[in-house]
Amino acid sequence: MDFLPESITHLIEELQTLPGIGPKSAQRLAFHLLKSGDARLGSLSEAVANIKNGVIECGCCFSLTTASPCKICSDSGRDRGLLCVVESTLDLIALEKTGEFRGLYHVLHGKISPLDGVGPEQLRVAELFARVTVEASPIVEIIFALNPDLEGDTTALFLQQKLAAVRSLIFSRIARGLPSGANVEYADDATLIRALQGRQRMS
Amino acid sequence: MDFLPESITHLIEELQTLPGIGPKSAQRLAFHLLKSGDARLGSLSEAVANIKNGVIECGCCFSLTTASPCKICSDSGRDRGLLCVVESTLDLIALEKTGEFRGLYHVLHGKISPLDGVGPEQLRVAELFARVTVEASPIVEIIFALNPDLEGDTTALFLQQKLAAVRSLIFSRIARGLPSGANVEYADDATLIRALQGRQRMS
Repeated sequence: MDFLPESITHLIEELQTLPGIGPKSAQRLAFHLLKSGDARLGSLSEAVANIKNGVIECGCCFSLTTASPCKICSDSGRDRGLLCVVESTLDLIALEKTGEFRGLYHVLHGKISPLDGVGPEQLRVAELFARVTVEASPIVEIIFALNPDLEGDTTALFLQQKLAAVRSLIFSRIARGLPSGANVEYADDATLIRALQGRQRMS
Repeated sequence: MDFLPESITHLIEELQTLPGIGPKSAQRLAFHLLKSGDARLGSLSEAVANIKNGVIECGCCFSLTTASPCKICSDSGRDRGLLCVVESTLDLIALEKTGEFRGLYHVLHGKISPLDGVGPEQLRVAELFARVTVEASPIVEIIFALNPDLEGDTTALFLQQKLAAVRSLIFSRIARGLPSGANVEYADDATLIRALQGRQRMS
């Protein structure tokens, strides 16, 4: 594409390095931005440059925030007996949006994955232990909301065994089964087996 | 998401206004950028701010360029008898990437669409006429490579009739039929009808 202006090909290259954006999307985005007003371009450019401004990890749950403890950790209306362990702040957002969970969170910032060189030391695991084992800890139940894959399962199992050795707690895992709106016919075997095993008694 | 830092929600909002980027993709992109180095952020931010730098329309084919006439128009190796009419510079890129076409282009910057208030006056139609009807014009054939939809067809037909009234030329349209790798079984009726009508004799 040496016939295209350098400023355009440069932005296309920059955009292509982003997750989920292939060559075609990058092109479409760049040409969309070309047609945008200068104010719009300036605003997006600044937002990118400033995204880290004042962003820190909450000293309690390790989600991203501008003040520690974060709004969720310092909310007196939340159930301090429930601790939901998630991989990332994105997962926390997804759960928080449902409005269903009123406990607190703990963000691991990843999951145990020996192949990628990620062990408990690379994650907020020590901080989780400190939080759970501290003298006055009000935590009653730990809910693992990790991704339902090999690493997520391994991480949950590892943490449960280590924590159970230290303190008596209720441990749970978010349910696995068919997503809402799915077809039994098209579900894969692993999902169907989990759905059967996790079947719930109708009252 | 009032528990998220303002700089993050602001970038998510900015990203969401881009075509093809929904709330979830915007979130994922923002969190990806959060983890990026400052050099990377600065580089993307600058690329966005500078995309229009020096970009102009070629005075001949009206594609985007930094020097007029553009590289394609000033390439003496190209066939000046063939003129391919496209809607946008993105379409030009797609065709150019194939390496199949060695003529010149004319970018209309849209297509005739009365419902959207776009008539020939809003497009580079007068410029196309000037190019085709100028005394020494070497153009022999005009190939319409417009999108295969109602407005694209209307635009091609309109231009063909107007141009044919002024000069004797060969007019053609890029073929319509099944895309490579598609299934006859799953093709829609309109596509199959076009594929049958446009069938090609095997030698």
